[in-house]
Amino acid sequence: MTDQYVATIDLGSNSFHMVIARYHGDSLRIVDRLKERVRLADGLDDVNLLSQEAMERGLACLRLFGERLRGFHATQVRVAGTFTLREAANAQEFVRQAQQVLGFPIDIVSGNEEARLIYQGVAHTQNTQGQVLVIDIGGGSTELVIGRDFDCKLVSSRSMGCVSFTRKYFADGRLTEENFEQAIEAAEYQLVPVMGRYLGLGWDQVLGSSGTIKTLLEMCSAVTQEPVIDLPGLLHIKTQLTAAGSLDKVDIPGLSEDRKPLIAAGLSILLGVFRSLNLDKMGFSDGALREGLLYTFFGRVKHHDIQVNTILALSQEYAIDTRQAERVKQTALSLFDQVRDGWQLDNGFVDLLGGAALLHEVGLHINFTGIHRHSAYILSNADLPGFTQEEQKALAALVRFHRKALKLTELEPLNYLPERQLFRLVRLLRLAVALNRRRQDGVLPPLPLTLAADDELRLSLPADWCDRNHLLLTTLEREQAYQAKVDWKLELVRV
Amino acid sequence: MTDQYVATIDLGSNSFHMVIARYHGDSLRIVDRLKERVRLADGLDDVNLLSQEAMERGLACLRLFGERLRGFHATQVRVAGTFTLREAANAQEFVRQAQQVLGFPIDIVSGNEEARLIYQGVAHTQNTQGQVLVIDIGGGSTELVIGRDFDCKLVSSRSMGCVSFTRKYFADGRLTEENFEQAIEAAEYQLVPVMGRYLGLGWDQVLGSSGTIKTLLEMCSAVTQEPVIDLPGLLHIKTQLTAAGSLDKVDIPGLSEDRKPLIAAGLSILLGVFRSLNLDKMGFSDGALREGLLYTFFGRVKHHDIQVNTILALSQEYAIDTRQAERVKQTALSLFDQVRDGWQLDNGFVDLLGGAALLHEVGLHINFTGIHRHSAYILSNADLPGFTQEEQKALAALVRFHRKALKLTELEPLNYLPERQLFRLVRLLRLAVALNRRRQDGVLPPLPLTLAADDELRLSLPADWCDRNHLLLTTLEREQAYQAKVDWKLELVRV
Repeated sequence: MTDQYVATIDLGSNSFHMVIARYHGDSLRIVDRLKERVRLADGLDDVNLLSQEAMERGLACLRLFGERLRGFHATQVRVAGTFTLREAANAQEFVRQAQQVLGFPIDIVSGNEEARLIYQGVAHTQNTQGQVLVIDIGGGSTELVIGRDFDCKLVSSRSMGCVSFTRKYFADGRLTEENFEQAIEAAEYQLVPVMGRYLGLGWDQVLGSSGTIKTLLEMCSAVTQEPVIDLPGLLHIKTQLTAAGSLDKVDIPGLSEDRKPLIAAGLSILLGVFRSLNLDKMGFSDGALREGLLYTFFGRVKHHDIQVNTILALSQEYAIDTRQAERVKQTALSLFDQVRDGWQLDNGFVDLLGGAALLHEVGLHINFTGIHRHSAYILSNADLPGFTQEEQKALAALVRFHRKALKLTELEPLNYLPERQLFRLVRLLRLAVALNRRRQDGVLPPLPLTLAADDELRLSLPADWCDRNHLLLTTLEREQAYQAKVDWKLELVRV
Repeated sequence: MTDQYVATIDLGSNSFHMVIARYHGDSLRIVDRLKERVRLADGLDDVNLLSQEAMERGLACLRLFGERLRGFHATQVRVAGTFTLREAANAQEFVRQAQQVLGFPIDIVSGNEEARLIYQGVAHTQNTQGQVLVIDIGGGSTELVIGRDFDCKLVSSRSMGCVSFTRKYFADGRLTEENFEQAIEAAEYQLVPVMGRYLGLGWDQVLGSSGTIKTLLEMCSAVTQEPVIDLPGLLHIKTQLTAAGSLDKVDIPGLSEDRKPLIAAGLSILLGVFRSLNLDKMGFSDGALREGLLYTFFGRVKHHDIQVNTILALSQEYAIDTRQAERVKQTALSLFDQVRDGWQLDNGFVDLLGGAALLHEVGLHINFTGIHRHSAYILSNADLPGFTQEEQKALAALVRFHRKALKLTELEPLNYLPERQLFRLVRLLRLAVALNRRRQDGVLPPLPLTLAADDELRLSLPADWCDRNHLLLTTLEREQAYQAKVDWKLELVRV
């Protein structure tokens, strides 16, 4: 009966969190929460290598989580890695082992995607009013989002978190005015490149989320008895901390033992945000990344819409010939439908292939020469709301190989999508691009595509069509030669 | 008295050409022409390596040209390498030796730049009427341009030339209907991706340029006595050639011995162009690449305008914050003016630094994260009318290093711009970017910049300004640290 359940895991820089929820009519109800302080960011050294010990702590936690998830299917679980895994040079090694221990695929999400997920978590948890500014201070990064209802309008993720700031500004445990001032200025400095856009857009309400801000809320409330963080409250906490003089002497109501080591850094970052954005008070929301992740399943349709919007936005920004893109998509999907069963390609692959077809010419904005490389560069580096990092990599790989020689060694390694399946999509996309080289409607007859053997494609071409379309036939024969070079068999049969 | 003269050299795939011209009031008069059949493309093997023999032929020719240019200053000579040098994997080796032998810097121009230069050569040589389609068939590539007066409206350069097509379709010297048909279809195939745009824009007049088309004109004229190439004439030549059956038996009026080996390929390409664009006849112009190059000097102002237009167009296409770009440019140039004498930076560097300042944020269109890499990617790969390949590389390098760590080993090697001078511009651009981090007008006081020693910069900062601008000061101190890491000394002095 686990099929009524879904689970999400947030591999944070400080803690790993899991929530399990149950479908309840049209909504989801959280039925279980697990949290482990893993302190992953603590294990990151000067050259961004994650220590063996930190990895072990992470794996031990995921082993526990994995037990809880026995019987869950891969489609019911989503796992997102954040700042520390984005930064760690050896993140892939950890992810590989973690997937094994946990039994489910892991996505490392970009900073902006993290910000959007946090916003969704808040928006689905809280009744918000008008335009909302959401602030989330994590172990390694701080996310700022302005949204309205369920739409994000502005997102960013800055490289400052309570773990990294503790190391930099409070490593010796001393709590002086000077340390605080340095840390607060560093936080302001991080915000300079983005603050103009936030101030320009404005907000009606400010909400914080996650552990650090929750602790600060509890410390403020201990004084004011109100569930609000305000500037006087934060400054009062700073006075209390500097009065104590060092972390080990701190004893303030609302501050638990395990939160103590990071509180000075968290406070400094929040004060930096307050100063940069001229805030005077903010509320708190229980929603966070893991809740946001939940709603990516729940609204699979809605999530799909975000992908569609992203593709539309890119098509406009990069002035794509959308009629040609649509033609290539139609051809690709009609080929896909004919081999999907034989190749065991599930629905997730439809979106990938369709997206790649719609975006394969995005690189034309840079230059026609090398268009496939430019398209891949853009899709690798742009911010693609609605796509996981793995999906983004797959899209980039598909457009990279949409034409010309198949230099497959240039493929960036994927986390969990099987390379073999990806290459099958590459083959379909290439055929669709080749077949639409004339860039005209009404050129193509029905094209029966079958699997002559496991990975051997057979494309049937009406003889009279061949006689009238020498150029397309030449194009297909060149395509056949390209595929043959990497041992992909493509048979062209005149019928 | 050589200062009234200028010279240009076209390092073609088949021949090297030099023209020398003399300023005559407001115009240029060609006073000398030299041509050597170097057959550079013949020396290109399967893996795109230029043979030692081919290089020797090229160097021998340039030694001759170099003698003729004794006494010329570098500002009076322009040399452009084309298709074969774009393709050859070891082109840099040839260029290095060639520069030594010749005594002048060599630019390898992109296909589109080549097309634009050819168009300028034609437009300055011929009285054209209305919209003109110019076709140039070279040894390695074919250029197609539509323009009006002195403005190019559409350019492209396709990888098909009479040397490469001879190898592919007429290697055995046999002249059969079948060989011709294959070659013509291959030419049509090359034009498929661009023909729609040409047909869409249209033209009032068609002109060919360069040796291959000149030979075809002479062969047509030998029959019709008219200075025009028409479709019946071209088909008649094809009939004559197939009737001869092989290249060694060909004897047609208007066809010289040295043009014979390449004529079948040249004819096939032109017939492919006629078919694809539904042409029936065309004229001929004596203007070509080398003449086009001449007018890049002559109209230095005009050439500068093309660069300005290119920058404007990119600013729009990539939605640059032009006010910020302008602020950075102003700061950069005011710093430049203070050290230009000490650093011996001539006027050419003003345009480079100004251009880089205006375009350094072009990569924001892709993503803010890694913006400097994205800007460099775009400037490396986009088509930049008015900039030589060397200038394009320099622009890309400047924006690549406009912020963050100075990973100077990533610098792509330059042909003739001294690395040391480029790095000096990098330093000025970085300072300008750092100083404008607030993205506001009126933030900066006058900033005296001096050379404390040869490569040691000293920036003076008014003490009261420092007290009011902690963040900018922090930014400058970080910049100081970045530069120190690569041993660039930057002193910040409170005054």
